[in-house]
Amino acid sequence: MTIEFVSGGHVTTPLGFLAGATSAGIKTKAGALDLALLYSERDCDVAAVFTQNLVKGAPVLVSRKRVAAGRLRGVVVNSGCANALNGAGGVEDAIEMTRLAAAQLGLTAEGLSVSSTGVTGVRLPMDKVRAGLPQIQLGTEGGPAFARAIMTTDTRPKETAVSVTTSAGSYAIGGCCKGSGMIHPDMATMLCYVTTDAAVERGFLRDVQRDVADRTLNMVSIDGDTSCSDTFLLLANGAAGLPRIQAGTPEANSFREALLAVGTHLARELARDGEGAQRLIEVAVTGAASREDARRIARTISNSPLVKTAITGCDPNWGRILVAAGRAGANSLDETRASLRLQGESLYERGSILAFDEAAVSKTMDAPEVRIELDLGLGDGAATAWGCDLTVDYVHINADYRT
Amino acid sequence: MTIEFVSGGHVTTPLGFLAGATSAGIKTKAGALDLALLYSERDCDVAAVFTQNLVKGAPVLVSRKRVAAGRLRGVVVNSGCANALNGAGGVEDAIEMTRLAAAQLGLTAEGLSVSSTGVTGVRLPMDKVRAGLPQIQLGTEGGPAFARAIMTTDTRPKETAVSVTTSAGSYAIGGCCKGSGMIHPDMATMLCYVTTDAAVERGFLRDVQRDVADRTLNMVSIDGDTSCSDTFLLLANGAAGLPRIQAGTPEANSFREALLAVGTHLARELARDGEGAQRLIEVAVTGAASREDARRIARTISNSPLVKTAITGCDPNWGRILVAAGRAGANSLDETRASLRLQGESLYERGSILAFDEAAVSKTMDAPEVRIELDLGLGDGAATAWGCDLTVDYVHINADYRT
Repeated sequence: MTIEFVSGGHVTTPLGFLAGATSAGIKTKAGALDLALLYSERDCDVAAVFTQNLVKGAPVLVSRKRVAAGRLRGVVVNSGCANALNGAGGVEDAIEMTRLAAAQLGLTAEGLSVSSTGVTGVRLPMDKVRAGLPQIQLGTEGGPAFARAIMTTDTRPKETAVSVTTSAGSYAIGGCCKGSGMIHPDMATMLCYVTTDAAVERGFLRDVQRDVADRTLNMVSIDGDTSCSDTFLLLANGAAGLPRIQAGTPEANSFREALLAVGTHLARELARDGEGAQRLIEVAVTGAASREDARRIARTISNSPLVKTAITGCDPNWGRILVAAGRAGANSLDETRASLRLQGESLYERGSILAFDEAAVSKTMDAPEVRIELDLGLGDGAATAWGCDLTVDYVHINADYRT
Repeated sequence: MTIEFVSGGHVTTPLGFLAGATSAGIKTKAGALDLALLYSERDCDVAAVFTQNLVKGAPVLVSRKRVAAGRLRGVVVNSGCANALNGAGGVEDAIEMTRLAAAQLGLTAEGLSVSSTGVTGVRLPMDKVRAGLPQIQLGTEGGPAFARAIMTTDTRPKETAVSVTTSAGSYAIGGCCKGSGMIHPDMATMLCYVTTDAAVERGFLRDVQRDVADRTLNMVSIDGDTSCSDTFLLLANGAAGLPRIQAGTPEANSFREALLAVGTHLARELARDGEGAQRLIEVAVTGAASREDARRIARTISNSPLVKTAITGCDPNWGRILVAAGRAGANSLDETRASLRLQGESLYERGSILAFDEAAVSKTMDAPEVRIELDLGLGDGAATAWGCDLTVDYVHINADYRT
């Protein structure tokens, strides 16, 4: 089995998927793509995870029902307006948006999922949606336009694809996502769409998606604020013509590994492009008493304002890292058994402070990526989390948009 | 029963307490007070709460044992060095610090608690502690010097006292605390000392302290990072000569109310002086399904980076407040039953967005305090939390201390 990243790969790299986007004028910036369609020529098995926030946007409420049926043909997405906190009218708008898009594609509304991202508490401009949808040209090279149309204040699109070759044949997995920030800045709203032309048994598809979400997207934090729109949608249309992948087989393992590669790539790009970010932070925790402890500690470190600002300032302030670990809600932590490496340099080993050249370590931190490795010395729990540094630009983006 | 704030009151306002401080040279800034003693002429009943961080500073490890015995005569504190992450040597230094201070006061080491606040992973300069302690002049007007000596990058001391008059007579409660930031910036390390000349039955003293801590200091967040040094020590020496206060009596209710007044005052001052803060944020949640739900929601809103930056920018972005509430981990939340007021202005009522003058509300937010009132419309759970806005100065303080 081989997994290879496809150069310039995207969400329509897998066979049978088409996408397109238009500038409908929902975003205030003239000419910005803000309305998009992702469409499969064949029925797809679908798996999805949505925000855990108790406040859910109307598109999430609508899409949850569509996904529950287990089969979909695609998704319609807009940026520039989250269609959240709009009550029953918002739900009607979300349904209407799928109805309009579906009619255009010759489908019933139930065949489409829907997402919206942008400011909350503002109704969708349905006239712009109605006028924009017919302008969308679908094509097999439409993935990059789709990825660009779902952006808010992301500085760049985030997309990838892998080609998987097994003894049974080849298939592809493509994906794209958007991160934090908006042209009218509001909640960080994560949207992620992954397509594959593999055929995958639906129960396994859901299991593997949840597993990969837990190990990739759910390990990213820009600022700790979850959104009411978070959506991760996985569509499998079987267009590669291979046998359906069943749980517990070597093919299932290959699929999990390939999906993990796509998810990890997107998660890292998401963190790297966090609002105001200069640096990607990768936190690898090993030796924890449990995987859950490792996850909590890795996430807490990656989201600690004091760790983030230390990295902004290229300060090898390892004490902040250990103290953040201590508040993560883990069951077990004993700093006298812990060891810590920063950019590959050992700073603290099994409770002892090591002598190190602060200026030299600081210099290695002045890089696009800063890697923290924390070995807790307690067990074999491991997890990796991603975040970004906290800069004055984060404050400006979120405080000063009126000035 | 009356509770009156004492003008210029402090931690030695209650009878029988003495305090003093010196500049021992532990802080790098010449002449800054950094070593202090708080001493009671009589034995005190004691109650204390310490950090829940799994990484605990050596002074916390030592003080926990001293407090467990139930009686103390005072506390010795230094700023400029947290004496945390120093292994067994740090614990020896903390014990030695109490031994030296106790000898000077004619006590055994077991009579004193100890706190240290400042940078972690650096040993205490014991020669400076040894030379500094004899310079401390204790006096009944020493409270303000004590409050100043425990500061790190606090911009001002935080102290208060109340006088309580009941049918049984009068007593006082005094308190001081320090907040976030250090001259060599590191973890926010909260220290709080409260004294009273009331005599209080020890079990009730512990109960009431925990209750007040949960309603005041534990409802403050500057940046969500807990420290390894957090300490709230309550000393009751009975010097006012009144009967011992027992649980379940009217006197106990008076004491609780007075201690709550002191705790609330200190909590608000703590938040107001948060690193880089321009504005105090007060979040009052009512109508929650439970008190625990109200606490979680109030704390989450007060600590949300997106709410904090909205307040930095005087932006009445009420959607961020509701969405932060949605991720607080509460059991119940239904935005269609929620109502929200900002600076007294209704913005959202039982699920409906109200028309309001954004510019006018924004103008009212350009104030030293911003008050958010969220009524969840579900039950009678209520809680208030305090925080501060997130400014570029927070990032500068924590990122740029080398430049």
